[in-house]
Amino acid sequence: MLNPIGDDAAVWQPSRSHRSVVTTDALVENVHFRRDTMTLADAGWRAMVSNLSDLAAMGARPVLSTVALGVSPQTGDDDILDLYRGITAAASAYACEIAGGDLTRSPALAISITAIGEVRPARVKGRGGARAGDIAAVTGRLGASRAGLHLADHPNAIDGKLQEEAFQAHRRPRPRIAEGMWLAASEHVHAMMDVSDGLSTDLSRMCARSNCAAQIEAVPAAQSAQAMAQQRGESADEYALAGGEDYELLVAVSPRAFEHLSSRFAKRFGTPLFAVGRFREGSGLFARKGEREEPLTPTGWDHFA
Amino acid sequence: MLNPIGDDAAVWQPSRSHRSVVTTDALVENVHFRRDTMTLADAGWRAMVSNLSDLAAMGARPVLSTVALGVSPQTGDDDILDLYRGITAAASAYACEIAGGDLTRSPALAISITAIGEVRPARVKGRGGARAGDIAAVTGRLGASRAGLHLADHPNAIDGKLQEEAFQAHRRPRPRIAEGMWLAASEHVHAMMDVSDGLSTDLSRMCARSNCAAQIEAVPAAQSAQAMAQQRGESADEYALAGGEDYELLVAVSPRAFEHLSSRFAKRFGTPLFAVGRFREGSGLFARKGEREEPLTPTGWDHFA
Repeated sequence: MLNPIGDDAAVWQPSRSHRSVVTTDALVENVHFRRDTMTLADAGWRAMVSNLSDLAAMGARPVLSTVALGVSPQTGDDDILDLYRGITAAASAYACEIAGGDLTRSPALAISITAIGEVRPARVKGRGGARAGDIAAVTGRLGASRAGLHLADHPNAIDGKLQEEAFQAHRRPRPRIAEGMWLAASEHVHAMMDVSDGLSTDLSRMCARSNCAAQIEAVPAAQSAQAMAQQRGESADEYALAGGEDYELLVAVSPRAFEHLSSRFAKRFGTPLFAVGRFREGSGLFARKGEREEPLTPTGWDHFA
Repeated sequence: MLNPIGDDAAVWQPSRSHRSVVTTDALVENVHFRRDTMTLADAGWRAMVSNLSDLAAMGARPVLSTVALGVSPQTGDDDILDLYRGITAAASAYACEIAGGDLTRSPALAISITAIGEVRPARVKGRGGARAGDIAAVTGRLGASRAGLHLADHPNAIDGKLQEEAFQAHRRPRPRIAEGMWLAASEHVHAMMDVSDGLSTDLSRMCARSNCAAQIEAVPAAQSAQAMAQQRGESADEYALAGGEDYELLVAVSPRAFEHLSSRFAKRFGTPLFAVGRFREGSGLFARKGEREEPLTPTGWDHFA
C-alpha cells in the first residue's frame, strides 16, 4: 500500500471503514534513557513502543510510522545502526511499517517517532468516558519498569526470574496492542488510556477528562517491584503508583460487566484485569488508608518537574 | 473531524476518495537555524513550512500535524510561546490543524513536526516519473533564502525591496501548496519534488529516482540573490544551485505541453514556470559552459556534510 521510500512523503490508503489515529513521542538521551541502563537498541525499542502504546490506548491497529533521528557528534555509525535495530524490531513485532523519516545532526541523541494506526469509529474510547460507579482497572501489574531502572545501580538487589522481569519491563516493554483492540471492542469499556507516567498521574488525568473522581483501593505491584522495594526499604505501592513506563492500559469499566469482562480477558490474554479502584462523583484521587480515606497526590512522571 | 487534544492520539477520517500522505522533518537550533538570523517564531514557521512543502511536493492538501518540541534549559516560557506562535501561524495559513504533540526536555532546542495531507490517488507524482526529453522547471526564482542568511552578517549588503525579499525568503518561506495541487492535477507533469536542499542536489535526486540525466540550461536566480552575490563577488547561479530552503517546486513536464502549462500557471499564480533544463538519457547532471558541456557536482545541503 505504500509507495517506496524516497519521495517527499509517504502515501497510504486508509481502509474505508476505519478512522486514522496519529500520535507522536520523543526520547532524548539522558532525559528519557541513559546508556548505562540500556543499549541503544533498547532505547530504540522503547521509543517505538511509547508510540505504539498510545495507539493501543486508542484501540487502534498500528499501520505506519515515521522516525526523526537527531544524531549527536558522539554518536557513531554503529550506534545509529543499533538504534534502528531496536526501532525496527519493535515496529515489526507489532506490524507497524516504517514509512520514512529524517536524520539530522543534533547536540544530543534524540528519537522522535510519529505512529499512525486505524480503528473503527465506534471503538474509539478516549480518556473522557469514565462514569461515576465504573471500575478502574489495569491490564497488568505495575512497577517493574522502575525496578529495572534501579537494577542499573544495584545489579544484585534482586535476582533470577525477578531480575529478568524487571530488565525486560525496563528495556523491552510491550505495548498492549491486542489487548487494546480487544478492550476497545467492548461496549462496557467507557474510557481507555495507557499508563506511561505512573498510575496516580494517569488515573488523575482520566478523572479530570471524565469530570469525576476516583478512589484507589488496590495497587497490583509487579513481583520484581515488590522485591526491589523490600530490598530498598521502600513501598511497593509507590513503585506501582509513581513508576511509569509500564505501558499497561488503564480502563474504566461498567461495574456490572467487570467480572465477566475480566474473566474473558484472562481467558484470552492469560492474566485478568486488575481492579485498582472505582470512579465516583467529584474530582481528584483518593486512597484508603486503613479505615480512613485520604486525598492522593499524583506522584508520577511530570515532563517538566 | 478531530477529537479534542488530550487523548493518547488524534483521530481523523480521511475522505474516501483520497490517499493520505505523511512526512516528517526536524529542526535543531544551531544546526538548522540560529537565533541571530531569525526569531524563534520564524524558526517555528520554517519548521512547519519544511513539512508543508513536502506535502506540496506530493500535490497534497494539508490536513493535520503533530509537533514534538525538545526544550533546552536555556529556553524560557516566552521562547516556547514564540516558537508555537510561528508554528501555528504557518499551520493556520495553510489550513493544517495541529492535532497534538509532545513536549520534552532536551539539551538543545529541537522541533520535530509530522504533517499529514490528502491527495487523489491519480495525482501522486513522486520523484521517479521524469522522462528523457521532459523539461525541468521550477515554480519561482531561487537563492533568496541564502541571500537572507548572509544578510544576518552583512545587514547593509543590499537594501530596500531586495532586503525585504531576502529576509522574507529566509525567515518566512512559503510552501507552494496551491501550486503543488494545481500541478499535480496536470497529466503533463510527470514528477514533482520541492527544492529544499538546493536545485543541483534536488535535481540530481530526481534524476537518480527517474533513471535519467539532466542538463541545466538556465538558473533563475532571485533578484536579491543576484544583488547579494554581486556585493560579495560571488556567482548568483551558485546561490540558486546550492542555496536550498527556497521551497519552490521542481517539476518534470512533457516538452510539448510546457509552454501552455507555464502560461496557464502564470495566469493562475502570477509567475511563469521557469524552465531550468531538460532531462535526457543517461545519469548525472550537466551544465553548459559557453559552447562546452560539463558535469555538474551537486553542491546543495548534505545533511551530514
